[in-house]
Amino acid sequence: MSGNTQGKLFSVTSFGESHGPAIGCVVDGCPPGLAISAADIQRELDRRKPGTSRHVTQRRESDEVEILSGVFEGVTTGTPISLLIRNQDQRSKDYGNIAETFRPGHADYPYWQKYGIRDHRGGGRSSARETAVRVAAGAIARKWLRERHGIVIRGYMAALGPIDIPFEDWAEVDRNPFFAPNAQVVPQLESFMDALRKSGDSVGARINAVATGLPVGWGEPVYDRLDADIAYAMMNINAVKGVEIGSGFASVAQRGTEHSDEITPEGFLSNNAGGVLGGLSTGQDILVSIAIKPTSSIRLDRRSIDKQGNAVIVNTHGRHDPCVGIRATPIAEAMLALVLMDHALRHRAQCGDVRTATPVVPRLAPEGRQTPPAPEA
Amino acid sequence: MSGNTQGKLFSVTSFGESHGPAIGCVVDGCPPGLAISAADIQRELDRRKPGTSRHVTQRRESDEVEILSGVFEGVTTGTPISLLIRNQDQRSKDYGNIAETFRPGHADYPYWQKYGIRDHRGGGRSSARETAVRVAAGAIARKWLRERHGIVIRGYMAALGPIDIPFEDWAEVDRNPFFAPNAQVVPQLESFMDALRKSGDSVGARINAVATGLPVGWGEPVYDRLDADIAYAMMNINAVKGVEIGSGFASVAQRGTEHSDEITPEGFLSNNAGGVLGGLSTGQDILVSIAIKPTSSIRLDRRSIDKQGNAVIVNTHGRHDPCVGIRATPIAEAMLALVLMDHALRHRAQCGDVRTATPVVPRLAPEGRQTPPAPEA
Amino acid sequence: MSGNTQGKLFSVTSFGESHGPAIGCVVDGCPPGLAISAADIQRELDRRKPGTSRHVTQRRESDEVEILSGVFEGVTTGTPISLLIRNQDQRSKDYGNIAETFRPGHADYPYWQKYGIRDHRGGGRSSARETAVRVAAGAIARKWLRERHGIVIRGYMAALGPIDIPFEDWAEVDRNPFFAPNAQVVPQLESFMDALRKSGDSVGARINAVATGLPVGWGEPVYDRLDADIAYAMMNINAVKGVEIGSGFASVAQRGTEHSDEITPEGFLSNNAGGVLGGLSTGQDILVSIAIKPTSSIRLDRRSIDKQGNAVIVNTHGRHDPCVGIRATPIAEAMLALVLMDHALRHRAQCGDVRTATPVVPRLAPEGRQTPPAPEA
Amino acid sequence: MSGNTQGKLFSVTSFGESHGPAIGCVVDGCPPGLAISAADIQRELDRRKPGTSRHVTQRRESDEVEILSGVFEGVTTGTPISLLIRNQDQRSKDYGNIAETFRPGHADYPYWQKYGIRDHRGGGRSSARETAVRVAAGAIARKWLRERHGIVIRGYMAALGPIDIPFEDWAEVDRNPFFAPNAQVVPQLESFMDALRKSGDSVGARINAVATGLPVGWGEPVYDRLDADIAYAMMNINAVKGVEIGSGFASVAQRGTEHSDEITPEGFLSNNAGGVLGGLSTGQDILVSIAIKPTSSIRLDRRSIDKQGNAVIVNTHGRHDPCVGIRATPIAEAMLALVLMDHALRHRAQCGDVRTATPVVPRLAPEGRQTPPAPEA
Repeated sequence: MSGNTQGKLFSVTSFGESHGPAIGCVVDGCPPGLAISAADIQRELDRRKPGTSRHVTQRRESDEVEILSGVFEGVTTGTPISLLIRNQDQRSKDYGNIAETFRPGHADYPYWQKYGIRDHRGGGRSSARETAVRVAAGAIARKWLRERHGIVIRGYMAALGPIDIPFEDWAEVDRNPFFAPNAQVVPQLESFMDALRKSGDSVGARINAVATGLPVGWGEPVYDRLDADIAYAMMNINAVKGVEIGSGFASVAQRGTEHSDEITPEGFLSNNAGGVLGGLSTGQDILVSIAIKPTSSIRLDRRSIDKQGNAVIVNTHGRHDPCVGIRATPIAEAMLALVLMDHALRHRAQCGDVRTATPVVPRLAPEGRQTPPAPEA
Repeated sequence: MSGNTQGKLFSVTSFGESHGPAIGCVVDGCPPGLAISAADIQRELDRRKPGTSRHVTQRRESDEVEILSGVFEGVTTGTPISLLIRNQDQRSKDYGNIAETFRPGHADYPYWQKYGIRDHRGGGRSSARETAVRVAAGAIARKWLRERHGIVIRGYMAALGPIDIPFEDWAEVDRNPFFAPNAQVVPQLESFMDALRKSGDSVGARINAVATGLPVGWGEPVYDRLDADIAYAMMNINAVKGVEIGSGFASVAQRGTEHSDEITPEGFLSNNAGGVLGGLSTGQDILVSIAIKPTSSIRLDRRSIDKQGNAVIVNTHGRHDPCVGIRATPIAEAMLALVLMDHALRHRAQCGDVRTATPVVPRLAPEGRQTPPAPEA
Repeated sequence: MSGNTQGKLFSVTSFGESHGPAIGCVVDGCPPGLAISAADIQRELDRRKPGTSRHVTQRRESDEVEILSGVFEGVTTGTPISLLIRNQDQRSKDYGNIAETFRPGHADYPYWQKYGIRDHRGGGRSSARETAVRVAAGAIARKWLRERHGIVIRGYMAALGPIDIPFEDWAEVDRNPFFAPNAQVVPQLESFMDALRKSGDSVGARINAVATGLPVGWGEPVYDRLDADIAYAMMNINAVKGVEIGSGFASVAQRGTEHSDEITPEGFLSNNAGGVLGGLSTGQDILVSIAIKPTSSIRLDRRSIDKQGNAVIVNTHGRHDPCVGIRATPIAEAMLALVLMDHALRHRAQCGDVRTATPVVPRLAPEGRQTPPAPEA
Repeated sequence: MSGNTQGKLFSVTSFGESHGPAIGCVVDGCPPGLAISAADIQRELDRRKPGTSRHVTQRRESDEVEILSGVFEGVTTGTPISLLIRNQDQRSKDYGNIAETFRPGHADYPYWQKYGIRDHRGGGRSSARETAVRVAAGAIARKWLRERHGIVIRGYMAALGPIDIPFEDWAEVDRNPFFAPNAQVVPQLESFMDALRKSGDSVGARINAVATGLPVGWGEPVYDRLDADIAYAMMNINAVKGVEIGSGFASVAQRGTEHSDEITPEGFLSNNAGGVLGGLSTGQDILVSIAIKPTSSIRLDRRSIDKQGNAVIVNTHGRHDPCVGIRATPIAEAMLALVLMDHALRHRAQCGDVRTATPVVPRLAPEGRQTPPAPEA
């Protein structure tokens, strides 16, 4: 594979450029007998699609998905599921000026060096538009994980630039355009984004993702550890610069007595591990946190060079997200779902459907089933 | 593969348990014609081997490597290179008490749940002892990368528990048992570790790894991004809970004007990207930082359960590292080398030996978090 | 992967059912800079498409291919190339009768057993219609192999049922609907097929494929041998029951003095090896021969069972090829191209672009079974 | 992977040269809980080891296997199983003369071209000695397949050079050094081999392998078909030039009415398919036949060239098998076992442990080429 396929048993092969005819993917390895419809997938796609609020890009894309194969009479057949999303809004003129220059913070320069050619329109293959197909594929994984194992995968924004967003309530996440789990901070986020947009600058974000209800023992012990595959998947999301599992970087300053989660007959007393020990799931919540860098496309002048190596000034007036993190929550959820789905099948391959031992029913961290990592909290 | 092979073209298949007859690996895909000897590999192994100072485990292991195949008359033949390390110090009695109980923070519980059986001796497959084979395989990759591309890979300890270690000097790293790049802090680290050891507790650490001299364009644009494969490799190291590339989590609070590295005809003006844009190398230093959790094996009492689910008290009196991070630097370097080697071959497969365009010679970031001075500086 | 991706570096991920919305594939790993157009691909597709003569199925399919990604301004960019072929002629009524019964010689029964569900329309995923995407993908591989290495890949029908077709002339192959390399036998083939069609029965065929101009040393020595990957690819073609390389099964009765090809400073004196020794290309022609079974869908009554296990009589009145082998030549050529392309990139990954030693220019075998004259001859 | 790993879920990574320190492999993905000992593996190794009769090479190799990992207290743990076989008889002088010349029919020439270097001692990596590790790995797969699914895998010699060996009796196979299933022909084989050995020439053979007791539906429908993976595995055996499934090349001249196996409520009426339809197992016996070329190493003079391209005369006086096919039966069985094992796990991954539908109990073909009686018969 040349870096466009993720997953060993539940594998997603992605294709498409931002301003080409279409984007899409082939999902291979899906178990047969899963009821799935375009509507099931569309629901997830609509959560990340552009134009949903004034805080994200105004590019017009309905992101309508078509199922081309692998589903018969509403049920998966076990053959590859191909998903197609036609590109609609392709105002290449917005991007014509970048054919000859390299935008700072973008992949323009290394693409040109690697391939000697690049589809510069809207960033081509490197555009975050490609993440739509991951959300589409993730929708299939989520449905199977929920129906087969009762696994629930959710995410939320934990920080918008300098503003930390204390976790309050899952129910709030879908009530605001930021996926913020806290109603009180939303007005602050709104005004921050309005000011940011006016300034022409951009900002980063922190997104947390949580998976609840995993059986014990999914993952691999040495390479392809469950947390390693999660880190891989998250770092494959555009603009992600850091990944934490459980207490993450906070564990550097922790003592063993503080970090290692004690176990009682009632279950674990804490979840610094983030639900993974030795690369295998413990049955506790999987806790993931990712850092998303500020959007590289901004209106303000930036120094760069052109193909001839001459100094140029670059500023981007296309329709961009001043914070790509705002639309990243559904993507992070999808990536987590894809990894868990792959390991569900991998575990079944080697160890079978029947769990090899009766698990100790784990009790979740005292902070509560819903509460993801608050390393600093 | 069932999670014991890393790398698609330069692939390392690892085997072995802590207290079994041996550990080792098969390195497949190595280019022919590389001069390599057991001594070249032993040099790297000796940097991580136990018993080198009072601050690490006193387990006696000479970790002598034997090359079983793939090298003829001192040169790689292109066939698989098998590396074997016999286990010597196997005092199983140290570990007998863990056959029936699950050590907090260890993989005992999920292993038992996944497989229904586990080699409990010294943690068996989940022991950090397995990382020796990664260092051995990494030694081959490092030699090829240096000889073929002039790439230099180095690492150092950036924090020991609560103590930050400011980068001062590469030369210092190999002069103290901590891989600390700063002579002044060494006494503080010594006394901190002595107190820690007496206390019976353990602590975490932060390790940074840097690769210098990469060509532009290694990596893949969507999945298998260079930074994603690095995150995967690092998170596959025992006890790692977080990975950052470039400015990492600091980028959450950054503005686009601050984060995205400007380019001039002389090169990049900063390296917040950590040497990777859009999943491809930019030619700048690859900057990686990882969080290592405190050792889970400590002398102090911890609550846990046994196989029957009964409450038990666990404390470990085996010979353990009070800070596994102290020996992690060579491992992080090796993992970085393995990822770069794999992508060197992957790039060559698709794009050929000849670089597709003349690169702008990149200048290293003048300063900045995680950015040590250039080797020549 | 779940059996829908072929190739490790030049990988083709196929999708689609015979009577679903579309079939297609994603070609990943193609080197950048290859000039390719839909017309280049269409040319190959038209060679295998139905309705070209009275001897093949009359199903109406224009098999028009659309390139969805990976090509920019007529040139490959190095990103995945997605190819889409919409299904047009979907008279499901032709197939309604097979929803409940298992056609002898078809995959109906094992599909139902494996998945518990199947898209029965036209055989769904098991239809030979899927091979169109292989021909499409193969067209890209052939163009690169020819332009980069001067490799020419051709095939022909060597036997139609009981009728052997002596090789005469490459030029004749495209002048008759059978891909027969011999003008004299064509009338005999015509009348044989007319009689066969009237009888309602079907017949098998033997197809030979030849690749000329390979460099020495492509392939792998133990697994993934060049001939093993070719055998794998050929046996993946619907209805193929046997594969031979070089002298194939004739080598059973040969002596070593007869079989092993002597070498002189002018080159090899024969080609019993079929261009592969120890899994690596010798520089001689790659000689492959495959056996294709008779079409299982025939008008004559056959005994079978239904889903309840009751005895039933099955006969198929859909529009079928009385000899699927007639349209198999372009498919065999495509599969050979895909394997060679994959190994071209694999060889380059490990050994680089530059050949490691000056090759002895090989001379083609003067004659011998399965050994057509050289193209220039 | 660079061609030294076979299998996607039950994967065998092989290493070692004929005259290096050792050969061996890492078996990854084995289900936990399988009772396995070195003795279980040794039993299979002893069936192929040299020196067992005057008709095979007299090289002294006890081929003693050591289990280095993955087995604890006699049971597989689910972690990689490493198998090591030290080389003992390494009379390199036997081979010194081939350092500068290319033996006809051997991999010497393409190896040298590919890698620019080769371990010439005894053919190095290309020696059939490597197949010992496949037999060792296959022993593990066979045991699991038999204990878990009641699958029995057996092979026999169907032809020795010009002498066809009609199938008579499974019990006879292990009673003679040829694995001939027919006591009457053994004297003829003995005298044929004695004469051949005196002549200094070599001869080919045909080996059949049969797997009985498969469930319905193992395999994949498009690529990685069960028969394609079998063809791949068999063609990966040294000296194999052809592979047939079921009626193989005989199907070319068959009619559909003759070839496609009818089904009744009692089962299939024949097995021309060889147990595979559409890439999936039908539940009938898997029938495989392979062609093995004559040994290339013979005492008689052969023309060849040296590294400088000069004409030379080559003849080999090392200890060689005049018919490598004689020792190939256990290898073919092992390769078949490895493929079935891999697909057993792949099927379970996607479709689960529980069969999706009640199978029709298949009846074996009453007779027919390549169809030996059922084990219980």
